[in-house]
Amino acid sequence: MNTIIELFNDHKSERSFTDRAIDDATLERIISTAYRAPTSVHSQQVSVIVTRDAEKRAQISQIAGGQPWIAKAPVFITFVLDMYKTGVGMKLAGKEQVAHQSIESLVAGATDVGIALGSVMAAARSEGLGIVPIGGIRLRPQELIALLDLPEHTFPVAGVVIGHVDVPSHHKPRLPLETFRHDEAYVTDGLEAKITRYNQQMTEHWQAIDRNDGDTWSESVSGYYQHIYFPDVLPALLKQGFGVDK
Amino acid sequence: MNTIIELFNDHKSERSFTDRAIDDATLERIISTAYRAPTSVHSQQVSVIVTRDAEKRAQISQIAGGQPWIAKAPVFITFVLDMYKTGVGMKLAGKEQVAHQSIESLVAGATDVGIALGSVMAAARSEGLGIVPIGGIRLRPQELIALLDLPEHTFPVAGVVIGHVDVPSHHKPRLPLETFRHDEAYVTDGLEAKITRYNQQMTEHWQAIDRNDGDTWSESVSGYYQHIYFPDVLPALLKQGFGVDK
Repeated sequence: MNTIIELFNDHKSERSFTDRAIDDATLERIISTAYRAPTSVHSQQVSVIVTRDAEKRAQISQIAGGQPWIAKAPVFITFVLDMYKTGVGMKLAGKEQVAHQSIESLVAGATDVGIALGSVMAAARSEGLGIVPIGGIRLRPQELIALLDLPEHTFPVAGVVIGHVDVPSHHKPRLPLETFRHDEAYVTDGLEAKITRYNQQMTEHWQAIDRNDGDTWSESVSGYYQHIYFPDVLPALLKQGFGVDK
Repeated sequence: MNTIIELFNDHKSERSFTDRAIDDATLERIISTAYRAPTSVHSQQVSVIVTRDAEKRAQISQIAGGQPWIAKAPVFITFVLDMYKTGVGMKLAGKEQVAHQSIESLVAGATDVGIALGSVMAAARSEGLGIVPIGGIRLRPQELIALLDLPEHTFPVAGVVIGHVDVPSHHKPRLPLETFRHDEAYVTDGLEAKITRYNQQMTEHWQAIDRNDGDTWSESVSGYYQHIYFPDVLPALLKQGFGVDK
């Protein structure tokens, strides 16, 4: 394994940070990796908003449902699906943007955000920093849109906390590789038995790190996915001018 | 800059490949990076389908609107938003999955796909291979779903071609960094002037590499975004059991 593949394999999310600052040269290097990331049809439909301001980070921590690491670590970056720039660019060519009215744009744009976010996570970790990706900003997206002054045809898809790690986290076991990698066609056979074994493995993992309250994977996913758990995403998308019925 | 940040900064998509094979040990290392990537609420809602079969790659090349590099290079990987596994896992806990009926799931799932896809692109390039991400599989998603035997609550979000590069591509200029990175709040001032200068830069870029047919960025984005350009995404999502109106 080369160092890059090792870095990805060693991925983990941290939730314990010091408040030690990150200098802007380091942050620029980290962000450069997202800036150079590919985007669908070279649309460059991603923007990032850097939040260093402590008061704003405290607000984002609340918007995301009470996540103290957002307030503690020195840098939060919001990754924005940005079809405002493409719309302005098209007007310069005498055209009107229609694509933001299609569900396709959300799928393509969120994928591009994921590529950019993944680049920043890997780059920050390569600089010796810790990270945790934050989807929880979609709990109350309208408040974050107001806080960051986001224009029409933009949406804050995900964020990331970057900081110096205080108490390192543990790697969590994954579902077996054969449920992730399929060759030539998707295989459903034996999935229940594989998940049952994995649930047991998760229980043993929590015991091994003295977290006896730890749920199995089936239980922890159920806690989220038995509900429409971020119901404000749809109204916020519509308010920002996106469409979902085409 | 460390080697990891350099690798990301050197990103480019290739479209000229030899048909030289990629051994499975290399492919396993590459895929391991996506397997270890983070997912929203540890849902592990991503799966990958490896297509080596030449006939199937030729079919995918057509499904994606005629992209010959998919047929030429030895490996194509489809990245699947996969809420089939979470649904099966939840049944084992006596719960029923509801979240796939929400637009939130598409946003979260496509983001997770993007992180996994970005990991594979970086890992493949670190192994000396070339890549090109393929969103065009969403042109006729229903055909790809049939070809790969994808079950309910899954959707093929994006793909990637991996192979040995024949004729290397060129780096394309990006919109200026200040339109990508915003500090504390989104800045719209001066965007038109910045895009106008960038359009000129793109024209000069195409001339420098003897592609005098090259469009400005405003023109090339307009070619896609003045239409609902992948209209089959919505019906395919609905057929797979996803919802978009919650």
